[in-house]
Amino acid sequence: MTGKLRIALDAMGGDRGPEEMVAGAVLAARQDEISVTLLGDEVRIRAAMAAFDLPSEVAGRLEVVATTQVVAMDESPFEAIRRKKDSSIMRAFALHKEGKVDAVVSAGNSGATMAAGLKYLGRLENISRPGIANSFPTMKGPVVMMDVGANVDCRPRHLFEFGVMAVAFSRVLFGIERPRVGLLNIGEEGGKGNILVRNTHQLFQQSSLNYIGNIEGQQTFQGDIDVIVCDGFVGNVCLKLSEGLAEVVVSMLGDEIRKRFLAKVGYLLARDAFAAFRRRVDYAEYGGAPLLGLQGTGVVCHGRSSDVAIKNAIGVAAEMVRHRVNDHIMNLLAADDFLAKKAEAEAEAGGPSAAVRAGVGE
Amino acid sequence: MTGKLRIALDAMGGDRGPEEMVAGAVLAARQDEISVTLLGDEVRIRAAMAAFDLPSEVAGRLEVVATTQVVAMDESPFEAIRRKKDSSIMRAFALHKEGKVDAVVSAGNSGATMAAGLKYLGRLENISRPGIANSFPTMKGPVVMMDVGANVDCRPRHLFEFGVMAVAFSRVLFGIERPRVGLLNIGEEGGKGNILVRNTHQLFQQSSLNYIGNIEGQQTFQGDIDVIVCDGFVGNVCLKLSEGLAEVVVSMLGDEIRKRFLAKVGYLLARDAFAAFRRRVDYAEYGGAPLLGLQGTGVVCHGRSSDVAIKNAIGVAAEMVRHRVNDHIMNLLAADDFLAKKAEAEAEAGGPSAAVRAGVGE
Repeated sequence: MTGKLRIALDAMGGDRGPEEMVAGAVLAARQDEISVTLLGDEVRIRAAMAAFDLPSEVAGRLEVVATTQVVAMDESPFEAIRRKKDSSIMRAFALHKEGKVDAVVSAGNSGATMAAGLKYLGRLENISRPGIANSFPTMKGPVVMMDVGANVDCRPRHLFEFGVMAVAFSRVLFGIERPRVGLLNIGEEGGKGNILVRNTHQLFQQSSLNYIGNIEGQQTFQGDIDVIVCDGFVGNVCLKLSEGLAEVVVSMLGDEIRKRFLAKVGYLLARDAFAAFRRRVDYAEYGGAPLLGLQGTGVVCHGRSSDVAIKNAIGVAAEMVRHRVNDHIMNLLAADDFLAKKAEAEAEAGGPSAAVRAGVGE
Repeated sequence: MTGKLRIALDAMGGDRGPEEMVAGAVLAARQDEISVTLLGDEVRIRAAMAAFDLPSEVAGRLEVVATTQVVAMDESPFEAIRRKKDSSIMRAFALHKEGKVDAVVSAGNSGATMAAGLKYLGRLENISRPGIANSFPTMKGPVVMMDVGANVDCRPRHLFEFGVMAVAFSRVLFGIERPRVGLLNIGEEGGKGNILVRNTHQLFQQSSLNYIGNIEGQQTFQGDIDVIVCDGFVGNVCLKLSEGLAEVVVSMLGDEIRKRFLAKVGYLLARDAFAAFRRRVDYAEYGGAPLLGLQGTGVVCHGRSSDVAIKNAIGVAAEMVRHRVNDHIMNLLAADDFLAKKAEAEAEAGGPSAAVRAGVGE
């Protein structure tokens, strides 16, 4: 392969089948510097590739690795990594570990993707909990929220790490030198919130990050914050609530508009506006959600990702590799490491009980 | 006063001042069966009342009680109930305790309102944590979410109680005999979620409630669930995120529509549709959020409540009194009380640490 940035794509992930993944890989490989290794059912992948009349230089940036197992969307991540060593997800991270690719992209089971990443790549030094970040569109630019689902029972140190990792991602992907960090809470004052966020607030206040303070839910989409920190339970609820609410608002508003525009003409004009709006905010088009904190690079995508979404996710993975997001994380963490250690000691003494565990997808 | 249902209204609550509260009270008192006691700055209240040319029977259903103190929106609830005994909020609950009114409505500091309710009325028997419920509009009918902010660190028993209370409210207010109850989680399978919801899921499964199971954020607005249970941190984030997102979606979609409709005409038509949509979903118009679990009746409203919103909130309080929502709560709880007790024992053994406390507004 000739592309300088080598991305492994789980061709068996996603609701639309390997054909959509191949289409996404083809879009990505039309760029000079990217090559894509597709893992999965070789026959289906090659058939889908043959449907494109690819110039040889693009074909030269695509590779296929045959795998025999598939991790289902609702499968337990721990079961999956134990039993499905020849699944497309597992083999993708095995290639990453061997240095044959630089990053992994999957629209499949995100819990299994994280678990496979942890198994093959391990965690970055001084990161106790890798997590999943997600970019939301706002009134102004994108905001990065972390964690959105990998860690459901957290301590202050974990939230602090999420902030550091999301800052590094925001800097690399969106070019924001000093991203503004907000802690998702239920009030702005320091004493507000549950035990976890109250203790985390103190940590961020002492850090060298550009910490704005506690923020409330309605500020998420206003665009005045670049990074929003929360535990994976709250973040996952926010992510799914937002998807659901956006759909409902669009649908209800569409009803009202259709009631008022007498002719079909009005409806057709409105439909065009609605489609443009959907493109602007659609999670699936937004380029996937990075797994941050691994000793390597991974990006997960929505199951319903289109070929364009997959191309965008491959682009995000490539940017993360190109700009060495993990080096940024390590540097930021080094600046505040004493804080994180202090936080851990405090949390052990006064925070939630020891019944805290990695909650990847379970 | 002649109205059979006597509601105390905190005239000093809300961002729009006593005049808006008086206007809301007047709207409510135009109904035969409701009388309203306004508490606050007597001069301003009477001046606002004089601006209406009220028929004597309506005027006869309005009463004024002069109070000298005001609880600010951002004031600590515990400070407020300690230092402001002559505030409109405190005096309203004192009247309730004395049996001079049947319910209290406030658009002021909701934490202080809950704290005052707890102080004067106390908790319902077997309810360990009163909370705040909120009705959201969905594609089909309203859904009740509880808790939306009063209790930030919870045990399974508390979430179970929220479910019972919200079921009683849904039955009384929306006439749903067996409301479908969902537990807000990050996956539908039983093993998903954090420690709190995993243990709570088991509780609900054994209860006599119409428990649907774990639900995910996007199901909130689909209308296939009548009651959504969550802790007050998650619920408050959901509430505020929804308000913020709905505004952003409307604004972004408005941009797209305006770009497309060439003439002002299209914009004006669309504006009409947008206004109708806002009325349909506006939290402020939706009638306030009940405080459930008190030995009495309280409803809190959004600070920016209009007169119509206040009238609706008074209507909700009146319905709660008329249909004895607290009796429904007690009956439902009696049916499952053994479960709640069992849950508590289990939670003490294996749940979050003892560092759990009432989090009303702090």
